[in-house]
Amino acid sequence: MSVTSTTIVRPQLISFDEPFALQNGRSLPRFDLMVETYGSLNADKSNAVLICHALSGNHHVAGRHHADDKHPGWWDNMVGAGKPIDTDRFFVVALNNLGGCDGSSGPASANPETGEAYGADFPLVTVSDWVRSQARLADYFGIGQWAAVVGGSLGGMQALQWSIEFPERLRHALVIASAPRLSTQNIAFNDVARQAIITDPDFHGGHYARHQTKPRRGLRIARMMGHITYLAEHGLGAKFGRSLHENRYRYDYGVDFEVESYLRYQGDKFSERFDADTYLLMTKALDYFDPAAAAGNDLRAALRKVQAAFFVASFSSDWRFSPERSRELVRALVAERKSVCYAEIQSTHGHDAFLMEDADYIAAVRTYMANIAV
Amino acid sequence: MSVTSTTIVRPQLISFDEPFALQNGRSLPRFDLMVETYGSLNADKSNAVLICHALSGNHHVAGRHHADDKHPGWWDNMVGAGKPIDTDRFFVVALNNLGGCDGSSGPASANPETGEAYGADFPLVTVSDWVRSQARLADYFGIGQWAAVVGGSLGGMQALQWSIEFPERLRHALVIASAPRLSTQNIAFNDVARQAIITDPDFHGGHYARHQTKPRRGLRIARMMGHITYLAEHGLGAKFGRSLHENRYRYDYGVDFEVESYLRYQGDKFSERFDADTYLLMTKALDYFDPAAAAGNDLRAALRKVQAAFFVASFSSDWRFSPERSRELVRALVAERKSVCYAEIQSTHGHDAFLMEDADYIAAVRTYMANIAV
Repeated sequence: MSVTSTTIVRPQLISFDEPFALQNGRSLPRFDLMVETYGSLNADKSNAVLICHALSGNHHVAGRHHADDKHPGWWDNMVGAGKPIDTDRFFVVALNNLGGCDGSSGPASANPETGEAYGADFPLVTVSDWVRSQARLADYFGIGQWAAVVGGSLGGMQALQWSIEFPERLRHALVIASAPRLSTQNIAFNDVARQAIITDPDFHGGHYARHQTKPRRGLRIARMMGHITYLAEHGLGAKFGRSLHENRYRYDYGVDFEVESYLRYQGDKFSERFDADTYLLMTKALDYFDPAAAAGNDLRAALRKVQAAFFVASFSSDWRFSPERSRELVRALVAERKSVCYAEIQSTHGHDAFLMEDADYIAAVRTYMANIAV
Repeated sequence: MSVTSTTIVRPQLISFDEPFALQNGRSLPRFDLMVETYGSLNADKSNAVLICHALSGNHHVAGRHHADDKHPGWWDNMVGAGKPIDTDRFFVVALNNLGGCDGSSGPASANPETGEAYGADFPLVTVSDWVRSQARLADYFGIGQWAAVVGGSLGGMQALQWSIEFPERLRHALVIASAPRLSTQNIAFNDVARQAIITDPDFHGGHYARHQTKPRRGLRIARMMGHITYLAEHGLGAKFGRSLHENRYRYDYGVDFEVESYLRYQGDKFSERFDADTYLLMTKALDYFDPAAAAGNDLRAALRKVQAAFFVASFSSDWRFSPERSRELVRALVAERKSVCYAEIQSTHGHDAFLMEDADYIAAVRTYMANIAV
């Protein structure tokens, strides 16, 4: 079936009943992954593409769950029939990562040892853990080798980790608006976000579910701050400037400027839909990701056994994962004589540009994907 | 008496018992300003320099209050005997602004109408209110015209406002690491900080004193976030990199990276010493400052009646008040044929550079001040 923006798609929950050893030394007795697929796997299983999500993403990439859904999946402009990641050609697999809050095993799942929600007892998982859980998912579908693993931001880190950890199991890695590791400033912002959540009196040490509450205040602040950093200064300025909400200064702490109204709304919405323990865990996975560290802080050495060809893209106004961070990766790949195609896109949308409809960006992905043999 | 870093200086509380009309339409029946002065006013009162503080500053600029004080005043590297703002030559006046929390009338002061602390009932004051209260302070000292008004960041906005509101009352304005108005992104960061404070359950609508508590959590988060934005990404990276606190990933929410430890410490310290209502008020003064708005959004028109000569300085790595924002001011001053000297300093210290010991910066201020006739 051809997948368009209005196609009704159904997620599936896939269970893995073997124990799963984690990087931190703990293990999960079993786990579930919530998955969506689009298109059909071809006979020799050579057309499978894995989409890895970023901090707050999930398995719902394209199409709609209900006819009255206001929005399609989060990468619907990129994935579908005739789109850059063409579901008429590729079998596309998307999942909610382990530790997520959209159906896969995570803090909100029942801990088999207690029968209660794991909450903060859910182990901290890493990008490597995700990649190895995704390898189990590949096995489930009988996919020996992905045609491509694709992701933006934290998703791009997963694509990169795939190429390092399972060099034979993918032919292409698309690493978009990402970095081989976070900068100090990124870690600092993540920690402020975590502290906002952890110090919210409704956090209850991460076991807020037992108290029938959620640390909404902290999650709201974390999202508001994060949201500013995902946007470019000029983009935010162009969108809101200093526009006043009611054409006057209020001289109180209500909403003076439109940008305040916008941010609070984003924060409110997110704090209702997202799980705080998952947010903490996702930011830690970001902070910990550093494949060069295990190779003596030498990114080239970390990439030496890579076999995949790379597509790397960055956005000029992205100050959270700046072009310089992508160039770092590209330089190391080139130095190791890997195949790499790099697109530096002019954009005013900051880090969020990887989710946006930019003609140059869309064309670059389209062309790269079209040239992947299946 | 000559003022050095070890000189014991004494603040003085100066009372103003006439009503004071505020920009927001309210008025204060009376107010106090906590003030420090250094050096001596000359016979024709032509050597007075006003220092205006930024968000979290105060009247204590140079010297020490006690022999065992760990640190001197916040601008001790700039103000003192033989220093760029030479107290052997100038009579330097520094104050805690109205609404502050270091002795001047502010949220912690008693509201004469109730006898209780004002708390959130203290009116929101603006940069113009500050400048007019500082004019009363000038009158108190019999200073008809300042040799210079000097400030960094929010302090620079006050120097700029002085030149617009009282063109005849200053000969020089030194506007450092500042901007003629905040960008959208700046306002957005300020609002997140305010929301962190306001949604802290210990905030109690700004009347936390009545509840014998303080919104420490919110103030801590606000400061942590602010602190990141005052530093340059590269400076933060050079200082902390990805150094681990205990040489390992903890896989919990304790301190993994040194930068986390540093930021939390900064946040903790600030949340004990600073008043939350003052923090809110200071950020609003920043947001509201926009002298061009009253002149049809034309900065040149706003500056037309300026008589002061300007010294403007910015720092290359300051992304909160970037060089471009200073150039905006410089261009408008030049277009209006005002005297302006502009220094764009190469620095890795971000916005905080204006408080730092940078040789080029110190030399530029020293030279400018030395050429001011008294």
